[in-house]
Amino acid sequence: MTKQIKLEDVAAKAGVSKATVSRVINRRGYLSQKTIMKVEEAISALNYHPNVIAQQMHTQRTKQIGIIVPTVGTPFFGELAAELERRLFNKGYKVIIGGAENDPVKERKYLQQLLGRQVDGLIIATHNANIAEYQHANLPIVAIDRYLRDDIPVVYSDNYAGAREACQALLDRGATRVAYTDNLNPLNAQDEGRLQAYRAAMRAAGMPELIYPSLPDPEAKRARFAQLFAEHPEVDAVFASNDLDAALLLDLATQRGLRVPEDLQIIGYDGTKTTQTLLPGLATVVQPLAAMAERTVALLEDKINRKPTPAKVVLPVTLKPGRTLRQLA
Amino acid sequence: MTKQIKLEDVAAKAGVSKATVSRVINRRGYLSQKTIMKVEEAISALNYHPNVIAQQMHTQRTKQIGIIVPTVGTPFFGELAAELERRLFNKGYKVIIGGAENDPVKERKYLQQLLGRQVDGLIIATHNANIAEYQHANLPIVAIDRYLRDDIPVVYSDNYAGAREACQALLDRGATRVAYTDNLNPLNAQDEGRLQAYRAAMRAAGMPELIYPSLPDPEAKRARFAQLFAEHPEVDAVFASNDLDAALLLDLATQRGLRVPEDLQIIGYDGTKTTQTLLPGLATVVQPLAAMAERTVALLEDKINRKPTPAKVVLPVTLKPGRTLRQLA
Repeated sequence: MTKQIKLEDVAAKAGVSKATVSRVINRRGYLSQKTIMKVEEAISALNYHPNVIAQQMHTQRTKQIGIIVPTVGTPFFGELAAELERRLFNKGYKVIIGGAENDPVKERKYLQQLLGRQVDGLIIATHNANIAEYQHANLPIVAIDRYLRDDIPVVYSDNYAGAREACQALLDRGATRVAYTDNLNPLNAQDEGRLQAYRAAMRAAGMPELIYPSLPDPEAKRARFAQLFAEHPEVDAVFASNDLDAALLLDLATQRGLRVPEDLQIIGYDGTKTTQTLLPGLATVVQPLAAMAERTVALLEDKINRKPTPAKVVLPVTLKPGRTLRQLA
Repeated sequence: MTKQIKLEDVAAKAGVSKATVSRVINRRGYLSQKTIMKVEEAISALNYHPNVIAQQMHTQRTKQIGIIVPTVGTPFFGELAAELERRLFNKGYKVIIGGAENDPVKERKYLQQLLGRQVDGLIIATHNANIAEYQHANLPIVAIDRYLRDDIPVVYSDNYAGAREACQALLDRGATRVAYTDNLNPLNAQDEGRLQAYRAAMRAAGMPELIYPSLPDPEAKRARFAQLFAEHPEVDAVFASNDLDAALLLDLATQRGLRVPEDLQIIGYDGTKTTQTLLPGLATVVQPLAAMAERTVALLEDKINRKPTPAKVVLPVTLKPGRTLRQLA
């Protein structure tokens, strides 16, 4: 009979304390990825009791999941949070919701609290850059539309394909100068699919790039977008990286006496239920919110149960035509 | 020196078990209002240790607050939840969010779980009727726009004044037949301020009431609202009890070839940031969301700290004119 492997053996093999092994097993506290890997390799090499691990984990579960979004006060993140909450509730979880509000300090505070003992896992859909806590988080995490770390799976909708289709729809309908409003994602190249597709489309069409930032402050954004028409009266099409930007541009254009779509075509992005109700005529790229939520929750459960997960999942989007696009010639 | 009053003394005086006294003090579990009152009267009559009570309560605090809304996926409740979350976070609370989704079963499940041990207090902004749990809930609760029980304070915006102003704005601009879309609040007369004000305005103007229900199913609602124009071609104004209804009517009217505001004036209700961005031309009654959240959190803290609270607080609304109203003659 083989010798019973103990926690001490794992600690000795990994060259760390017993407490550290326990924290890795129970996914609590902050640990470097290096430490986690060393311990997991030792567990694996020694074939340390998987049943005991499962039991320990089970008894420590809180049946609470943290969701951190920029805010539930905008249609995309409000509807996303609602879709996640419904699915998590059906699986017996309660949801702690945090609004990071484009404030890295608030996001870090949430993480510091939630990474402690309060949740079994986290779903992250924020856009703040350089939050160091993610590098040491020792808890099941799934991200939406945001790369955090190689071993944290990301659920994307197909930003590149969606933006490519949006630009193509404008060009197919005679657009000669296309501006783009860019969500401020100060993050990784892999999160910039919409921007990259716009750039590629302009390059292929031999047109210049006209990129306006979607500023977080509403008044500043309005002022900046208003400049677009003054600075570039030749613009006859806008691809907005979200529907709120598209609506703002529609309003500004109307106030300026521009006819939509005759003088200016507009296409947005997101296509939430709220947008489709309040602004049914807007052409937009519809993200598959329900499917994204479904996949996110499934991946989080896999993470919690220590099953392997893919690095990313990319879900297809659909283009919804509308009265802000001209008829195809 | 007076004799030290003990838990047993309170239990004996109230005619209940020690466990029941403890549950009343710690605000846990389900108890009838009658039991709670008996125990609180005994505590008061015997002048039982307020410090001990405070301490016991303090140590049992979870620093979590539950918020139950219909969904965070619509502009009003999404923005309300965001305003509440920000304030609660600043006070050191985390927020468990529950979407009741017009489903009394889901709302009851949330209550059964949250009333147990997981939260220090609850904020309720749902519209399901006859949830018996509220009658026996023994926990600090504040409601928004919904009467639950005499001792649960309610934060309202001034539904009656807002609806009166909306109707008056339409009548002042020459409306001769005003329809109303009614949120399904199957609850108490005190929650029906908008309906009552519409009825009073029609009575005063000698006009018939034309009330269309705001059905929860989007397709059914669209079909029902479409009937309005067929059944009552004489309607030249609509007061919608929420902006999503107003947007739907605007779309239906446009599809039918009606000019807004020449043929049909429309005014909505809520005036969220999302609506004002996506549909800036819509006339609407703006609810003071930030002030409602501020007052709700303050009342909940008073409840948690056993300070007296008013039965209700009514906050003023403002009418936002827009391109869906005619010019004043």
